[in-house]
Amino acid sequence: MTDIKKEYSLVIVGAGPAGLTASIYASRYRIDNLIISQAVGGLVFEAHKVCNFPSEKEITGRDLTEKMREHAESLGASILMDKVVRISKEKNGFKISTGLGQDILAKTLLLAIGTEHRKLNLPNEDKFLGKGISYCATCDAMFYQDKTVAVIGGSDSAHTASLYLSEIAKYVYQIYRRDKMRGEVAWVEQLLDNDKIEVIYNTQVVGLKGKEKLEGIILDNPHNSQKEIAVDGLFIEIGTIPRTNLAKELDLDLDESEYIKVGLDQSTSQKGIWAAGDITTNSNGFRQIVTASSEGAVAAENIFKYLQTLK
Amino acid sequence: MTDIKKEYSLVIVGAGPAGLTASIYASRYRIDNLIISQAVGGLVFEAHKVCNFPSEKEITGRDLTEKMREHAESLGASILMDKVVRISKEKNGFKISTGLGQDILAKTLLLAIGTEHRKLNLPNEDKFLGKGISYCATCDAMFYQDKTVAVIGGSDSAHTASLYLSEIAKYVYQIYRRDKMRGEVAWVEQLLDNDKIEVIYNTQVVGLKGKEKLEGIILDNPHNSQKEIAVDGLFIEIGTIPRTNLAKELDLDLDESEYIKVGLDQSTSQKGIWAAGDITTNSNGFRQIVTASSEGAVAAENIFKYLQTLK
Repeated sequence: MTDIKKEYSLVIVGAGPAGLTASIYASRYRIDNLIISQAVGGLVFEAHKVCNFPSEKEITGRDLTEKMREHAESLGASILMDKVVRISKEKNGFKISTGLGQDILAKTLLLAIGTEHRKLNLPNEDKFLGKGISYCATCDAMFYQDKTVAVIGGSDSAHTASLYLSEIAKYVYQIYRRDKMRGEVAWVEQLLDNDKIEVIYNTQVVGLKGKEKLEGIILDNPHNSQKEIAVDGLFIEIGTIPRTNLAKELDLDLDESEYIKVGLDQSTSQKGIWAAGDITTNSNGFRQIVTASSEGAVAAENIFKYLQTLK
Repeated sequence: MTDIKKEYSLVIVGAGPAGLTASIYASRYRIDNLIISQAVGGLVFEAHKVCNFPSEKEITGRDLTEKMREHAESLGASILMDKVVRISKEKNGFKISTGLGQDILAKTLLLAIGTEHRKLNLPNEDKFLGKGISYCATCDAMFYQDKTVAVIGGSDSAHTASLYLSEIAKYVYQIYRRDKMRGEVAWVEQLLDNDKIEVIYNTQVVGLKGKEKLEGIILDNPHNSQKEIAVDGLFIEIGTIPRTNLAKELDLDLDESEYIKVGLDQSTSQKGIWAAGDITTNSNGFRQIVTASSEGAVAAENIFKYLQTLK
């Protein structure tokens, strides 16, 4: 286990591209910093293929994350694999309490806590998790060798899930509520070209069938005159929602979708707290790996300036 | 030579990280795009060491640029190595005229034209260029094997220039007008630790001595009771200024330092024209490789949306 101190100039919550890049910049400014996260990589870690990070033609999310983690650690960052359960304001900063019972003091705080998968909120959705239901094709596709699966969604993450699943499963339905796919045309072209993928437009999944595990899905519109399709697996790729618990506890200003409002310098509405990456309102809401990294860099520079004023 | 069409949906002027990343995203949106630039890489190309790009622990600016260029070209982008001499508005977009006499039509335009080196504006500065005066240590350090050189500046680019020169030259003076260095503490520490580098604070270079080539520099404050230091080379690293000629010609709104004012979506004050990278007012003015890349990505997404509205 990493050797963790009792106090840091900067604690970064989250180890996705935003948190890792912020740590790289912070370390080069010689800000002693600790990253706390339950996992390294954030949602990127799950990506089967990343094809739009500028310096990499094609790389898995895991490998890209690993490169950033190695970079951050090579500059001295410690990563504590733990859950932050509470953050309270102290006289000269913040006290961060973790699930494994650590209390760490921080002069400044960077929230790079990203987003989590949006759920359908259907009966049995939680019960079937890991028993037919998944939010991560990269993680779970291998369980569906030669099986029939459905993917819900019309964005790039739905497209890449379908394409990846088509390499493993027998047949893939991609179900989308609108009449035209969103996202990069490059993915959509591959999708429509693929004999193993059948796209069902203008349709929503309104029910889950099965006893111990998922056996089928119910549609709101009949497909080939059937409202029910038998599937072994359902991959729900209908977007992400911000992880708001810490932001609310800290009383940060949020926008109407509950993303953390930040200034151009990534500062939040509370002194000493910055936010970067998918959790924020910046980068015009585009939420890419490269935009998250950029926000992390900008935050670190401003945290450096702030810490200078405390000296 | 690349096969260049007469018309593109998007012409990107500039092939630094912003322009190349924009091209990568644009190509994945299936926007036919052409990059026009006199050189690939922008100012990054000159960087001896890049240590803060998140996925690379240490890489030369040339290699990082090359990875981005390969990525962009692998997705179908054409790069025209030429100078843009004039851009005029046409009925449905813009006509871009190049130094080698090409006229290219574009529905949309992305200016990723970056910045250029700031000069001292001293007598003989232009005359001694390449004869003792340089704005690029990476390019020219090799000419100063075992010689005495001076670097002017207190930013990261000055620090990395001094450190690189210390590996080649006999002795390096770093001259800075303030009493404390700016930039990453990691570089400053290495600088102050290096026996071959002598830092001179609170001092400016006010004159250049020499007949055919640079032989010495004149300081405004005496150093070791001498106002003149004999040097074979002088590396001027006092920052950058935006390349404004095209922006002015197109009548774009600029800020007081002449950077192009852009919205959160990287759009400029003129319809159909976006800007990204060091030339803009975005990214809180931080101007890093990763922030330029991020701006390029955001611009491409918005250009895609704009082009959709034209259909």
